[in-house]
Amino acid sequence: MTKQFSGIIPPVITCFDEEGRIDEEAQREVVRFQAKHVNGFYPCGTYGSGPLMTIEERKRVAEIVVEEKGSCDVIVHVGAINTGQSVELAEHAQSIGADAVGAIPPYYYKYTSEQLLDHYRAIIRAVDLPVFLYNNPGLSGNPISAEMLATLADEGLAGVKDSAFDLVSFYMYLIKVRKPDFIFIIGTEAIAAAALDAGANGVISGLANVFPEFMASFYRTWQEGNPRKTGEHQLKVVKARSILKYGPTLTMTYAVLKMRGMNPGHPRAPYQDIPASLYERAEGELRNMGLL
Amino acid sequence: MTKQFSGIIPPVITCFDEEGRIDEEAQREVVRFQAKHVNGFYPCGTYGSGPLMTIEERKRVAEIVVEEKGSCDVIVHVGAINTGQSVELAEHAQSIGADAVGAIPPYYYKYTSEQLLDHYRAIIRAVDLPVFLYNNPGLSGNPISAEMLATLADEGLAGVKDSAFDLVSFYMYLIKVRKPDFIFIIGTEAIAAAALDAGANGVISGLANVFPEFMASFYRTWQEGNPRKTGEHQLKVVKARSILKYGPTLTMTYAVLKMRGMNPGHPRAPYQDIPASLYERAEGELRNMGLL
Amino acid sequence: MTKQFSGIIPPVITCFDEEGRIDEEAQREVVRFQAKHVNGFYPCGTYGSGPLMTIEERKRVAEIVVEEKGSCDVIVHVGAINTGQSVELAEHAQSIGADAVGAIPPYYYKYTSEQLLDHYRAIIRAVDLPVFLYNNPGLSGNPISAEMLATLADEGLAGVKDSAFDLVSFYMYLIKVRKPDFIFIIGTEAIAAAALDAGANGVISGLANVFPEFMASFYRTWQEGNPRKTGEHQLKVVKARSILKYGPTLTMTYAVLKMRGMNPGHPRAPYQDIPASLYERAEGELRNMGLL
Amino acid sequence: MTKQFSGIIPPVITCFDEEGRIDEEAQREVVRFQAKHVNGFYPCGTYGSGPLMTIEERKRVAEIVVEEKGSCDVIVHVGAINTGQSVELAEHAQSIGADAVGAIPPYYYKYTSEQLLDHYRAIIRAVDLPVFLYNNPGLSGNPISAEMLATLADEGLAGVKDSAFDLVSFYMYLIKVRKPDFIFIIGTEAIAAAALDAGANGVISGLANVFPEFMASFYRTWQEGNPRKTGEHQLKVVKARSILKYGPTLTMTYAVLKMRGMNPGHPRAPYQDIPASLYERAEGELRNMGLL
Repeated sequence: MTKQFSGIIPPVITCFDEEGRIDEEAQREVVRFQAKHVNGFYPCGTYGSGPLMTIEERKRVAEIVVEEKGSCDVIVHVGAINTGQSVELAEHAQSIGADAVGAIPPYYYKYTSEQLLDHYRAIIRAVDLPVFLYNNPGLSGNPISAEMLATLADEGLAGVKDSAFDLVSFYMYLIKVRKPDFIFIIGTEAIAAAALDAGANGVISGLANVFPEFMASFYRTWQEGNPRKTGEHQLKVVKARSILKYGPTLTMTYAVLKMRGMNPGHPRAPYQDIPASLYERAEGELRNMGLL
Repeated sequence: MTKQFSGIIPPVITCFDEEGRIDEEAQREVVRFQAKHVNGFYPCGTYGSGPLMTIEERKRVAEIVVEEKGSCDVIVHVGAINTGQSVELAEHAQSIGADAVGAIPPYYYKYTSEQLLDHYRAIIRAVDLPVFLYNNPGLSGNPISAEMLATLADEGLAGVKDSAFDLVSFYMYLIKVRKPDFIFIIGTEAIAAAALDAGANGVISGLANVFPEFMASFYRTWQEGNPRKTGEHQLKVVKARSILKYGPTLTMTYAVLKMRGMNPGHPRAPYQDIPASLYERAEGELRNMGLL
Repeated sequence: MTKQFSGIIPPVITCFDEEGRIDEEAQREVVRFQAKHVNGFYPCGTYGSGPLMTIEERKRVAEIVVEEKGSCDVIVHVGAINTGQSVELAEHAQSIGADAVGAIPPYYYKYTSEQLLDHYRAIIRAVDLPVFLYNNPGLSGNPISAEMLATLADEGLAGVKDSAFDLVSFYMYLIKVRKPDFIFIIGTEAIAAAALDAGANGVISGLANVFPEFMASFYRTWQEGNPRKTGEHQLKVVKARSILKYGPTLTMTYAVLKMRGMNPGHPRAPYQDIPASLYERAEGELRNMGLL
Repeated sequence: MTKQFSGIIPPVITCFDEEGRIDEEAQREVVRFQAKHVNGFYPCGTYGSGPLMTIEERKRVAEIVVEEKGSCDVIVHVGAINTGQSVELAEHAQSIGADAVGAIPPYYYKYTSEQLLDHYRAIIRAVDLPVFLYNNPGLSGNPISAEMLATLADEGLAGVKDSAFDLVSFYMYLIKVRKPDFIFIIGTEAIAAAALDAGANGVISGLANVFPEFMASFYRTWQEGNPRKTGEHQLKVVKARSILKYGPTLTMTYAVLKMRGMNPGHPRAPYQDIPASLYERAEGELRNMGLL
């Protein structure tokens, strides 16, 4: 596979120590572990605790991931609560050699379409890198319609990472965008097979943070082109991720990496390590699935 | 294809005359038109205006569809606002030779899991026919969890028609139900390819009311097993149905049948015929797609 | 108090026997019990199990309530899933001497504004009685905007019963309706004091089914015009109703009437009598509040 | 009125210049204008663009408001996306002589009850000032139940600012909190009269940013204790705020201050000044109401 921004792309977590500082050693270990199996990285996003970090911390993590990326693409998440911060992060990502940037709509407040369009125009103007829009209405509170996406594609947006968990709205993106080389990335492994069949380039998969080999093997199954085999594999993927949802998925991710013998540190407050009882229950079920 | 309850199954509309009475002539014509292309019928459901009809009217329409079904299966929708009516309709469906019955959870009021389970137990007890549960939380207000479905499957439920438009929750049904011969039907053409790949038996497709050939051809494409070709066809299906959503889809259905030269009568009040301007706009776009 | 449609108005429950048939004896007893304390009745509504009954059953219950009403007003709920049934019920209510009719928007399906307006126009045209619109978006799925209400008021609608549980949207009704003698009824005791202060005429109160004296006393407190005393009483009302919400409120209502020594029969399936443990817990807490 | 944290408290906006920098001159002018009429300030909250500012900017605005507060109380909003930032802001607020701090739950991510409780425990531990919890589930995505509020009250929380726009859940706060001197502030003028009647101490009112005299006069009306007169005044307040909702309310606020002859600067991107047509329409309607 040589296409850019394709295959399996983990939204790599950020490793914090017990005091909540970035643990660079652990971070490099996690990136190197994933890099053996995956095709790209999406640091500083939702899984990457980007919104919980300062601008300076986000820059540092982006640098580490670029340094350790191996042959992978890196799409640095630069989405922030306001336009100025997103532009600053995008300029930094370009300066350190990232392959692209991605940005969730500004969150907390609700914005009009015109305000959202101008936000993305400012990011597109600021860098020469491909810019991805990261649609996640559940977290941003600002959904991006297919019409808005088509407008931004015409104005230079390179692609979309769609984490709405709504296959029909993803299909509408594919139908409405007119730009021929626009890049569609499905922002969850949960509906990945269907998205790939319809034209998605790749999968930004939270589960690939902990089971990169399993997700790489899912992607190879899809490439073989046997739909029923892909369907079966997809169900296994959904079953595995349903176990990761016993607690807040982000906190479960650190726990499962620990089950796998790594030392990913801890999530940042307000998140906390999961309770021991939950750890054991998830470990048992992942073992039953043959994933541990 | 010989498997029961597979392929394309239109939730056939009910034809009313200008006074709101069932138009038997028109009804037979619509059923015969669809029967040439499809594999089954689901009369008296949401598209079939079941909830807008009296018990006696619903029985009459079920009889007509059974009479005109040709070699198709008929799953009569017997879902109603209370348990007694659903049981009465199920017993009638059995008495006229229907192949199965389906039932949406009781609507309007919100019920506990135990109340919903008992509702379905009463229907299952009442007939020897296969009973399908029709999940449609947007209309019923009473979502059916994967755990509840698994319980009912163990107690004799034959299958599910899932119209939640949520691929992940459909996958969870497939993962959680333990009964080996349970029949999964995806209750919309919008995410049909993904559902079929994962193990769905068939598709209850509102769009098949107006374009049964087109949906039959989609299904044949899927049977050929080329996922990218299926994906392309799926996008065309979604594009077509997005045109049917310009107005309330049910009212658009009568209009598009008229565009196709049929005389399906009218929707029942509170529904109304669509305005002429909408008719023309939809006709133009369906023509552009080559569907008219 | 002599004003029509003012004061406390219970949406009186319907009493069913163990086989699910209307229990006329119990019904008369419940109506007579409430009539001693309240100012009106709203039979066959949501609490009245109207949607769970046949047209014939609804007519019978309306007759019983009119016969037993004493000096109370009776607003018969004629809301139904389609226009024809609502019109039939409204004509019947007029024929038996009801004081007014009320109607929830048609439920299950989603309708356009124009379709909803036409639905109400048909009911208004059908009878000479005052017609109330019963807004309950959580159950009907079809919210009525302040603009729609103002339009219908101009076309003859007599009033509204608002059960949206949203004080701001109730205020917007008061602000937008231009008709001088339009009657605003708040459709819950939970925000009754605020609604009355702003101009509501009366309160359709589910809690008055079981504690009509308590609700009558709340209303007298409000009439005395001491806002802090009213506020305190309002909090007691909300606390009492929060206990009624331990189970589905409708099923709790039968149980609490039983705690009070009455024999209200049973809710109709899919509803069921509440479990004994819940009965005891609610009884204990209502006793603690001094209501039993 | 001498009680602390009572009366009308504007969540004062932050004034930005055309380059998006804080405009200190304009900021002081706005605070002095409001201070003549109101009883307190809530800077750096939702109206205050707190989430759009850096930590340093938030500290600077808090300092300006404390300097210009006159005889008003100042509750500095220290809510932030993570625990560390909230603690840092709370310590700063204490160091500059603020009277209290308030904090929205951490936003963007969804948290468990335990994680949210620990977040507030950290803030309460960090300062000797009264700490308010600012409930706003629409923006934070993390609703605070009455049970959680009662727990935090027992552990030292001083009060709540409730902006859920749900009178019943506000009542449940009043019912469930056991701490005798807990301070309830209703976080919107839209349902203020009802909240005050039930025991709220004061009103954090966005509308007081632009019409502080009008809101002060509403509060005096409430103090007079005539519920029908208060009800009428409440409806005027709701009507005025409905005009402020023609655009995003925050951007409308700058425009209306300009209509009143002030120079409040501009909202920060992604927000933008409202279009001229909207400005004129709102100006006309506010003039019709006699507010300009």
